[in-house]
Amino acid sequence: MTQTLSERARSGDRRALARLLTQVENRTAKGEEALRALYPHAGRAHIVGITGAPGSGKSTLVAALVSEARKPDAPGGPRPVAVIAVDPSSPITGGAILGDRVRMQIHASDRDVFIRSMASRGHGGGLAAATVAAAAVMDASGFPLILIETVGTGQSEVEVAAIADTTLVVQAPEMGDEVQAIKAGLLEVADIVVVNKSDRPGADRAAAQLRAMLTVGAQHDRAAAAAGRPLPKRPDVMLASAMTGAGVPGLLKALDTRNEARLAAAAHGSDAAALKRAEAQLSGILAERLRARLNDDTHRAATQQTLRRIATHELDPYTGADDLLSALSSPEQRKS
Amino acid sequence: MTQTLSERARSGDRRALARLLTQVENRTAKGEEALRALYPHAGRAHIVGITGAPGSGKSTLVAALVSEARKPDAPGGPRPVAVIAVDPSSPITGGAILGDRVRMQIHASDRDVFIRSMASRGHGGGLAAATVAAAAVMDASGFPLILIETVGTGQSEVEVAAIADTTLVVQAPEMGDEVQAIKAGLLEVADIVVVNKSDRPGADRAAAQLRAMLTVGAQHDRAAAAAGRPLPKRPDVMLASAMTGAGVPGLLKALDTRNEARLAAAAHGSDAAALKRAEAQLSGILAERLRARLNDDTHRAATQQTLRRIATHELDPYTGADDLLSALSSPEQRKS
Repeated sequence: MTQTLSERARSGDRRALARLLTQVENRTAKGEEALRALYPHAGRAHIVGITGAPGSGKSTLVAALVSEARKPDAPGGPRPVAVIAVDPSSPITGGAILGDRVRMQIHASDRDVFIRSMASRGHGGGLAAATVAAAAVMDASGFPLILIETVGTGQSEVEVAAIADTTLVVQAPEMGDEVQAIKAGLLEVADIVVVNKSDRPGADRAAAQLRAMLTVGAQHDRAAAAAGRPLPKRPDVMLASAMTGAGVPGLLKALDTRNEARLAAAAHGSDAAALKRAEAQLSGILAERLRARLNDDTHRAATQQTLRRIATHELDPYTGADDLLSALSSPEQRKS
Repeated sequence: MTQTLSERARSGDRRALARLLTQVENRTAKGEEALRALYPHAGRAHIVGITGAPGSGKSTLVAALVSEARKPDAPGGPRPVAVIAVDPSSPITGGAILGDRVRMQIHASDRDVFIRSMASRGHGGGLAAATVAAAAVMDASGFPLILIETVGTGQSEVEVAAIADTTLVVQAPEMGDEVQAIKAGLLEVADIVVVNKSDRPGADRAAAQLRAMLTVGAQHDRAAAAAGRPLPKRPDVMLASAMTGAGVPGLLKALDTRNEARLAAAAHGSDAAALKRAEAQLSGILAERLRARLNDDTHRAATQQTLRRIATHELDPYTGADDLLSALSSPEQRKS
C-alpha cells in the first residue's frame, strides 16, 4: 500500500479519515501536508453550524437531522453526513459532554455517518481555524453535509457557528434569564432559529414572541435602510421536536433550500461564509507561523526576555511587540 | 488643563479613567499611547477572575465581595475595588446582561468602586488581551483589587479567567447535567471553587462531592508524581451565600492570603499569571500589527486576492499564508 492517508480518506477509508483528522487537529507537519493535498478537492459540502444554550437540545436535534438525511426514502436518496461536536472537554472528566454519544449510537453501524468530537481547547491557531480545517478534510472525503455542533455560550463557540454556510440556533421554550440573554446574543449569527421541544407547552408562544421580536427588528431595519445604515440578518423561526421528529423533515428541507441559494450565489463569485472560513484559516496559520519564528533558536531567548520584562512592567507590551517585530524582520544573525 | 487623560486617571479622575478605558478597548492610537504611559505604574493590583456557569450567582457574589472590601471596618481599612464585567452583549438586546447592574446600584455613589462592562465580542487582539489591558489601566489608576467577571461557558471566557492571579469558579448546588459538565471544565482553571447559595438544600452535599472528586484527583496526583508527570492544580472548595453574606468575609480573606503568597513568589521572580498576561497582550498586539500590515496600501490587494483564492479552493491556506509572509518580509516595493 503506497497510498497516502489523504488518498485513502478520499477513497472512503474511515479509519484513515479519523487518523488524518487527528493530524490536522494537532497541526502536525503531516496534517499540514494532507490539508494542502486535500484542499483542492474540498469546497462542495454544505457546512451547517448548530448552536444553542445549554439544555436547548442541540445534540438531540443533530441526531434527528442525521436520521432524516439517512432515510432510505430521503429526496435524492440518503446522503453521507459528517458531524463535528465541539466539546468543552476536560482532562478531569474525560470530556465527551456534547454530541450525546448515546443518541448517536443508532448511527454507529452506518459508515456514511461520521462523527468526530473536537476539544474546544488547546488549538494554537484558534478554534475556528481548527474546525474549518477539519470540515475541509471531511468535505474532500465526500461528505456533502457537515454539521458542526457547539455549545453556543462563548465567544469562540459563536465564531465557530458563524463560519458555517448556514447557522441554526436551537432554543427550548422555557429557559432561565441568563440563558435567554445568551440566546439573544446568538440571534445575530442565526440563519434559522429552531424552537425545539415543540411538543412542550409554551413552544408556540416562544416562537410567536421570537417572531414578534424579529418584526420589531424589521421595523428598525426599514428605518436603518432609509438612513443608509447596514441591515442586520433576520433569521427564520421554525418549530421542531427532536424527540418526536416533528418539524425535522421541514428543517432539513429548509437547509437544502438555503444551500441551493448559496451555491447559486457562489457561482456568481459571492460566498461570504467561504471568505470567513478563508480568513479564519489564514489568520490561524499566520499566528502559528509567527509563534514558531518567535520561538525558534534565533529568537527564543529574546522572546522570553521580552515576556519577562512585560510581566514585571519594566517594558510595555507595545514596545515589546515592536522590538520583537524588528528583530524578526532584520536580516537573521544566527547566534553561534 | 494640560494634563493628559492618563495623568488625570492616575490622579483619581474617574471620568478620565472611563474615557481612557474606551480608548484602550477600541485599540485607538490614543489608547496605545496611554497604555504605554501607564504600564510602568501597573503591576501591583490583585487581579481576581470570577466565572461560573449561567445561574451560579456570580454577579451577586461579585457584589457581595465588593461590599465586603468596602466595609469601614475591613481589616486594613476599606480599599478601592474595580470590576470588569465581560458581557456577551448583543446589538439586538442592547447588552448589559451580566454584572447585575441592579445589585451593584448600592455602590453607585461610592467613587472607590469602579464598574466597567466590556463586550465579549469584537476585540481584534482577542478578549484576553483586551481584558488584561483594561486591568492594567485600572491597576495604574490605584485599584489594588480588580475583579473580572465572565460567564464561564466558552473558551475565550475561560482564558480570561485563567489570566487572573487568582481564579474563583462559582457554582450553585443544583444545576443541569450540561451545566455541570461545563463546570467540570472550569475546575482546571480554578484556584477556589465557591459553592454559592449555601443557604439552599444540597449545598453541603455539593461541596462534599466536589471535595471527594478532588481527593480522587489527589490520588491520581500521587501516581503522577511517582511517574514524574506534571500535576494539575487542585482548587480549594469554599461555601458562601452571596444573598445572606455567609462565607463572604472568609472568601475575601482567602483571596488576600493567596495574594500575599503571590507577592512573595513574584518577589522571587516567579509569577506565572503575570507571564500569562504578558503573553496574551503580546500575541494580541502582534496579531493586530500583522493584520494592519496585511491590509496596508502595499499589501491589501494581495491579501484580498489570496483570501478569495482560498475561499474558492484554488489555493490552500498554508500556501496562501506563506505567500503573504514572503511578500511582507521582502523589501517593500510601493505601488505608485
